[in-house]
Amino acid sequence: MPHKLGNACSPVTSDCDLVGRIPVKNMATETSRKLYLEDLHIGQRFNSGSYRVDEERIKSFATEFDPQPFHLDHAAAQSTIFRGLAASGWHTAAIAMRLLVDGGLPLANGIIGLGGDLEWPNPTRPGDTLHVESEVIEIVPSRSRPNQGVVKVRSTTLNQDGQAVYVFTGKVLVFRRPG
Amino acid sequence: MPHKLGNACSPVTSDCDLVGRIPVKNMATETSRKLYLEDLHIGQRFNSGSYRVDEERIKSFATEFDPQPFHLDHAAAQSTIFRGLAASGWHTAAIAMRLLVDGGLPLANGIIGLGGDLEWPNPTRPGDTLHVESEVIEIVPSRSRPNQGVVKVRSTTLNQDGQAVYVFTGKVLVFRRPG
Repeated sequence: MPHKLGNACSPVTSDCDLVGRIPVKNMATETSRKLYLEDLHIGQRFNSGSYRVDEERIKSFATEFDPQPFHLDHAAAQSTIFRGLAASGWHTAAIAMRLLVDGGLPLANGIIGLGGDLEWPNPTRPGDTLHVESEVIEIVPSRSRPNQGVVKVRSTTLNQDGQAVYVFTGKVLVFRRPG
Repeated sequence: MPHKLGNACSPVTSDCDLVGRIPVKNMATETSRKLYLEDLHIGQRFNSGSYRVDEERIKSFATEFDPQPFHLDHAAAQSTIFRGLAASGWHTAAIAMRLLVDGGLPLANGIIGLGGDLEWPNPTRPGDTLHVESEVIEIVPSRSRPNQGVVKVRSTTLNQDGQAVYVFTGKVLVFRRPG
């Protein structure tokens, strides 16, 4: 299951993040076929492409959304529980979402999250390369709306050393193939 | 419990978001005193300031982290389950974090989240003004580390109509007062 980074970021390809200029390489192991409710089964697994976490983006994300010393400044972060600069957990969560949308969870109607539970077992550090491994763990067809169901997916975001930095077990609304 | 928006955003005040240029007005109801573990009790409540959600920022956040039609384009969003442009749930989560850091949850050592569960009961729309109401629901002092504990806080993010758009029940690491 190799993961490579795109080395270049062309603004005219969909691989490229137009805001952050961070290359996102989609290497999902499933085919590019988009999946409906009836295509899913418990135990089904998906792998995302990879995403390199930029130090400046860690700081600018934190400046906007989570301005705490351990997300903003190397020196200040050293004396905190993080023992060094760490990305905001919400930054990691947002990166994981990008990896899922870019093929890590190829649902035909997109990824419509209803909620879920999450944890951050390890910090995300500057320069980390993340990818997401997902598994379908529950499928509940709707009784009242026969064309849809709620699927529980556990998505584990791992760094280049195989350490989990973020685990999100989310409930996703999934539709059946139209008529 | 009135919530007002700052009308101007000066880059030299801490009220101002230096990246997004979105005014954040801190009107936390607790005093500005920062709290340690022994200052917390179950049922304790906190209110954040307010934050106006900018339409262009909804789109640029989604372009970077959650590029799906219902977060990017009004017309495309109309035919989706959202029936109009909606912020990424991770954008709403990040805004809620900013409101907590800016006085909505005044913990002395900052807000160090270990995990939690979340849901998005309603979409966040362009122009919405959000605030966060938090309540301490559990306090578990550490047995092995007497200077810290884990506190469970339920934080409900509401729009200007009092609708909950995001509920996060998070476990936060909190320290005792030193010495």
